[in-house]
Amino acid sequence: MIFEEIAKDTVERVYGAIASIIMGRDGIALSQYLKEGVDIDLETIGIEYANLLSEISKVTESIGSGVTQEVNILTDNYLILLRSISPEYFIALVLSPDGNFGKGRYLLRVSVPKIKAEL
Amino acid sequence: MIFEEIAKDTVERVYGAIASIIMGRDGIALSQYLKEGVDIDLETIGIEYANLLSEISKVTESIGSGVTQEVNILTDNYLILLRSISPEYFIALVLSPDGNFGKGRYLLRVSVPKIKAEL
Repeated sequence: MIFEEIAKDTVERVYGAIASIIMGRDGIALSQYLKEGVDIDLETIGIEYANLLSEISKVTESIGSGVTQEVNILTDNYLILLRSISPEYFIALVLSPDGNFGKGRYLLRVSVPKIKAEL
Repeated sequence: MIFEEIAKDTVERVYGAIASIIMGRDGIALSQYLKEGVDIDLETIGIEYANLLSEISKVTESIGSGVTQEVNILTDNYLILLRSISPEYFIALVLSPDGNFGKGRYLLRVSVPKIKAEL
């Protein structure tokens, strides 16, 4: 299935990437992939970021910034890349803080039309 | 004053950058700079993103991601780069969507110790 392939591919092709999830803004995952040996609660993380993305989208629209396409969050422990697919869906990639930011952003961007075509 | 210099320097040295603000999480600006001819309500944008940054920080800490260092938001109309300076302060850079993302991130990162030294 294309969603599984994209989730896996995104993780395996980016240095430092550990997990990926394609998710609805309602918190229901379409597909997810965790690198072997990684122990994180990806679904909980996804749900929290789904909420944040909705919150961020509301704010950016209210100040006339238009639709939110992408959000990247760097924390002490992770780099989290979020890319909006449609008003209902997004894809998230979790990397270690020193992961390849540019390639992660690029792969998420090019995954959007592929995912959209299957929705 | 160093804050003014950093705010101006960050905007003038990055392709596509239009405004910069150094702000407290309480919404009070230490310094801001707008490129000539730019008409945006930087203080309102700053306050909205101050709130978002606090919201994002709460979520990332609650899921064990540690402290939020950086948030980048790409919308239809702007690219907004936020960098945490301390638990109380952050710096924001507003660019056009095609602005130089990498250089913006870099200049914000290196500005942090300079700003911290003056707080």
